[in-house]
Amino acid sequence: MNGAQSLVKTLVNCGVDVCFGNPGTSEMHFVAALDSAPEMRAVLCLQENVVTGAADGYGRIAGKPAATLLHLGPGLANGLSNLHNARRAQTPIVNVIGDHATYHLQYDALLTSDIVGFARPVSAWIHEAKNSQTVAADVARAVQAARSAPGGVASLILPADTAWNPAERAASMLPDIGPAMVSADTIDDIAKLLANGKKSALLLRGRALHGEGLEAAGRVQAKTGARLLCDTFAPHIELGAGRVPVERIPYFAEQIVDFLKPVEQLILVGSKPPVSFFAYPGKPSWCSPETCQINYLAHPHEDAVGALTNLADALGAPASSPIRVPLDLPPMPAGALNIVSVAQVIAQLTPENAIFAEEAATSCFPLLLTMAKGRPHTHLPLTGGSIGQGLPLAVGAAIAAPERKVICPMGDGGAAMTMQALWSMARENLDVTTVIYNNSSYAILNIELQRTGATAIGAGPKAMTMLDLHNPTMTWTNIARGMGVEASRATTAEEFADQYGAAMKQRGPRLIEVVI
Amino acid sequence: MNGAQSLVKTLVNCGVDVCFGNPGTSEMHFVAALDSAPEMRAVLCLQENVVTGAADGYGRIAGKPAATLLHLGPGLANGLSNLHNARRAQTPIVNVIGDHATYHLQYDALLTSDIVGFARPVSAWIHEAKNSQTVAADVARAVQAARSAPGGVASLILPADTAWNPAERAASMLPDIGPAMVSADTIDDIAKLLANGKKSALLLRGRALHGEGLEAAGRVQAKTGARLLCDTFAPHIELGAGRVPVERIPYFAEQIVDFLKPVEQLILVGSKPPVSFFAYPGKPSWCSPETCQINYLAHPHEDAVGALTNLADALGAPASSPIRVPLDLPPMPAGALNIVSVAQVIAQLTPENAIFAEEAATSCFPLLLTMAKGRPHTHLPLTGGSIGQGLPLAVGAAIAAPERKVICPMGDGGAAMTMQALWSMARENLDVTTVIYNNSSYAILNIELQRTGATAIGAGPKAMTMLDLHNPTMTWTNIARGMGVEASRATTAEEFADQYGAAMKQRGPRLIEVVI
Repeated sequence: MNGAQSLVKTLVNCGVDVCFGNPGTSEMHFVAALDSAPEMRAVLCLQENVVTGAADGYGRIAGKPAATLLHLGPGLANGLSNLHNARRAQTPIVNVIGDHATYHLQYDALLTSDIVGFARPVSAWIHEAKNSQTVAADVARAVQAARSAPGGVASLILPADTAWNPAERAASMLPDIGPAMVSADTIDDIAKLLANGKKSALLLRGRALHGEGLEAAGRVQAKTGARLLCDTFAPHIELGAGRVPVERIPYFAEQIVDFLKPVEQLILVGSKPPVSFFAYPGKPSWCSPETCQINYLAHPHEDAVGALTNLADALGAPASSPIRVPLDLPPMPAGALNIVSVAQVIAQLTPENAIFAEEAATSCFPLLLTMAKGRPHTHLPLTGGSIGQGLPLAVGAAIAAPERKVICPMGDGGAAMTMQALWSMARENLDVTTVIYNNSSYAILNIELQRTGATAIGAGPKAMTMLDLHNPTMTWTNIARGMGVEASRATTAEEFADQYGAAMKQRGPRLIEVVI
Repeated sequence: MNGAQSLVKTLVNCGVDVCFGNPGTSEMHFVAALDSAPEMRAVLCLQENVVTGAADGYGRIAGKPAATLLHLGPGLANGLSNLHNARRAQTPIVNVIGDHATYHLQYDALLTSDIVGFARPVSAWIHEAKNSQTVAADVARAVQAARSAPGGVASLILPADTAWNPAERAASMLPDIGPAMVSADTIDDIAKLLANGKKSALLLRGRALHGEGLEAAGRVQAKTGARLLCDTFAPHIELGAGRVPVERIPYFAEQIVDFLKPVEQLILVGSKPPVSFFAYPGKPSWCSPETCQINYLAHPHEDAVGALTNLADALGAPASSPIRVPLDLPPMPAGALNIVSVAQVIAQLTPENAIFAEEAATSCFPLLLTMAKGRPHTHLPLTGGSIGQGLPLAVGAAIAAPERKVICPMGDGGAAMTMQALWSMARENLDVTTVIYNNSSYAILNIELQRTGATAIGAGPKAMTMLDLHNPTMTWTNIARGMGVEASRATTAEEFADQYGAAMKQRGPRLIEVVI
């Protein structure tokens, strides 16, 4: 057995059985070792930001890490922006980065770089393997670190000789470092706050937004009347009919301020105080009312689910909340295709239990409103603001949940960033329906150009070209077909309904370009 | 005038008049300021690794920096791997990265990241602007740093408020920090070495491989019989008929060892001792003969051109070398299309003075051999081993030299990494002919799998799928058309000759997919 084989076997022993990768020469022994572990699935991606974004989508849905396989520092570099997004999503990822053999580094060959330097800003844990005999132990610790509450990126740097030299054996899984318990005193304090008659809201994040956590939050809502809120970009939330209703905080700073104005006390459950996404001249960054009292029920590393359950019990809340989102499907639209009619079609035709890997930017507003009362589904948004996450996220989510339909509504600007993900959808025959909103624009930036005041100080035609995606207009049907994905183009609501309806009835990847 | 306007004007004052960018909200004032400086050309790219690779191609041909405009840490992250390549090419780049307003950073909004951390591994110089009044001075220093010998990436981090707050004025250009002179003693020492009767070779890099530097090296060659060598991936070399002949060091370690075996003394001119690209079990990393004496005529920051000229004078070399590459065009091929017949067509039909932005990997060998005796041209290869540089490099080179034909021979694996560059070729109507060698494979890795010994230890079908780009096969004509580039597909030598010949006669972007 060599180091790479001990590593791959250890991953499997630790429950990590999917590896997204784009390997190179320094990772050849890892690649060869894939065949020694039949349980390990290897998924090739054409660009590393697809690798890391897919690992994020997988981790958010599977609730456990996938591994990546990246080619030295530059391979890692290509995947960093989706690791940034994954860090914000608190997704567990075992991030394996090949490197030159330990003795080769002294020569500063062309691919040599400061891998630890690249990895540090996105990693919760970093380790450089030094010896093939200890690589198995290193990876067991990496998995443990990735899984530690609330979840994070554990980066393991694997010099080629630690992969090709001999190893004795694989390692077994280490115990999980679970979340810290929230004390009874804290539960008691929050219970008293919720009984003081002030207008309260709980801002939920992480496990508080799905499954048991969301159910427990619903009990608190039912008993106390407290509002349940989530961040604009909550990483993983269960929405739609039959679910506990949660209000999403809006995107723009002044909207957040209005939205939070009535809140007298804000209770954070795995979340942080709401701030504006960007700074704007003369607009606030801090968005809670000055008089609003902010309290923590659970920090991100703490057990939000247990805390909410104990809080609901302490309050004497009902065993299950009667407050549920009603099903309210919109009418089927006819005629013009626009972001409203697209949303209506999607809400009408998407089956239960779909996963939305969504990065539709300015086009998402009617979709989110409509789907909030649509069939129950899981929503995975862009979490760190770095566009180009949606398509890779869909790849990973579809691999984590092959029995669920994955819908990927994408703005054209974001889709262009990681269009290479389409190829992996085709190769793995993933059940992903991608909807590209083709408005040939970084539409959000046209809004922001106004909001930042930049227009007022002289933005002219040259500035406008930097926000515009005409000249040439991308044709997504061509791009998709070029990467093996069946594609069509809709220009009316009826055409879109036909194409989307057909996609819902078939399995496998499909792209629909909607011209809006 | 605001900080952004003072910055853009200062760039122009310092001779930086092209900006490749993919901006976001935090860069809106920079974008608006573009209209205040008519001299500044702004080029939008769909992904940041196109931005940085284009800046590299521009810098290598123009001999002066372009600016980039990147959206906070994640935008920088997306461009890091081509900045790694640019660092290895020693290309001057003024790398401008927007950031949140200084006062907004405390809130750790989702796009906040450790920008300095991301930038450090690729940057020769980093500075965080703190004040709109001093941004102009900061950028003047950034340009000076980027231009300092041998050239490098100067990263300037620009918080949004330093762009939107008032500034007094633009700054003027600072004096260039030229290369250090090589002492007369060193020239004398090397002249003596070259007269000692040992078998000598000069390993040239940087300015020693084009223009005056190459001519001076030719004089030394003519006088002493010393071989002139260049690295496998010398960043910028002038080749072809009429030029001083230079031998390229081969790629694989054992080939390098054979190639260098006769060399008794190796004289480095802006270069480092040759080492293998990767480490392999049981193969050497250090590739010069053990007995070979290594001497430095010029380090990378030193004046290689002056040193070679002084050396030639000291040796009493002729004013111009009579040793020149003869023109030797291959026959026009017929029948099967393969990497040899593709090379023959390209050599036959490419006009003088073309620029080759080349990343054809395993497909490049016959092309390089054939073009070595083809019409005079400039060769820009992949410099740091991070694939996905060629297409962006072609964008930048075409903007730097609009009167020259740019040829971009690409392997499909590398082309897939930054396919988004095609869109910028279409938008800017760049005179780039891209040739995609579609072998549906990371072909180099199939070779490396053997060479690393990974096959022997059990690589099987799963390993092979990680190196294979079939299933689905990419159709590059579709991908190119999807991004607005005219495209065709050749399956015989005649078809390729027709299509390539037509491309040589037209202006504007064109992609030819050769199926090999």
